[in-house]
Amino acid sequence: MKNSILSYIAGFLDGDGCIMLQLVYRHDYLLGYQIRSSIVFYQKTRYRKYLEWLKSKLKFGYLRNRKDNITEYTIVGHEEVEAILTLLKPYLRLKKEQARLALEIINKLKGIKRLSPKILLKMSRKVDRFASLNCSKKRTNTAAKVKKFLIAKNLLSP
Amino acid sequence: MKNSILSYIAGFLDGDGCIMLQLVYRHDYLLGYQIRSSIVFYQKTRYRKYLEWLKSKLKFGYLRNRKDNITEYTIVGHEEVEAILTLLKPYLRLKKEQARLALEIINKLKGIKRLSPKILLKMSRKVDRFASLNCSKKRTNTAAKVKKFLIAKNLLSP
Repeated sequence: MKNSILSYIAGFLDGDGCIMLQLVYRHDYLLGYQIRSSIVFYQKTRYRKYLEWLKSKLKFGYLRNRKDNITEYTIVGHEEVEAILTLLKPYLRLKKEQARLALEIINKLKGIKRLSPKILLKMSRKVDRFASLNCSKKRTNTAAKVKKFLIAKNLLSP
Repeated sequence: MKNSILSYIAGFLDGDGCIMLQLVYRHDYLLGYQIRSSIVFYQKTRYRKYLEWLKSKLKFGYLRNRKDNITEYTIVGHEEVEAILTLLKPYLRLKKEQARLALEIINKLKGIKRLSPKILLKMSRKVDRFASLNCSKKRTNTAAKVKKFLIAKNLLSP
């Protein structure tokens, strides 16, 4: 991709995009929680074409029209988020530190062969730290909640 | 300025900035209303340094910390807004049409030697048209209001 396109998208992400790491509860997971990484862009649905252009550049992800006339463009997954943040990081300003930390966490997650309760808790704390930098408003799942779950299931000693 | 900086700022303006044309009431103006052009960027005050960087690039304008922990970076004035939009327009995507229309209106305003009631009303209608493209939420002054004022003051026949 051309430098001017990458720097443009970095500016747009700084202005209106969202880099997210979330603790997602999965009833079918032994450890209860999954760490989900994503990048989200929002625009009024009348500007959906613009988000389609963005997707044509970033390749990954999908668009979804919400009922409130907002279209979301979401890229989910460690591989996908890592690829995009690696491309954009040199041009980011406001969210450069966020991108750096997200890449660090994703990299660690990718290096883990088998997630143990202890490691999940350690990574959850990193996710907590990341969240404090971020645009996400309501956050219900935290490292504290993961810990409570693991203790309740006798997967971790108090 | 480097291309990658210009395209970055264009992306940021598309994501989070605001191009505004407003009808401003001035009690000391014979015609009652002034057309004001501005560009505004908003960020949480903790990111004020980032807006200072932006100002160091765009030169014009001023920063103001609001009481709600938001810092506004505002560039006001036809000359200033024209200079910046001319620089950024080739890189804008979402707000390119807005920038084009703002430049058209500013250019016409600059060419007017003496603003007559009729011309003010005509320009106010262009401002109305511009507003419909824009991020501004509440808008109290419209061409209809300008017309009412001019008629009340016997500056325009109904």
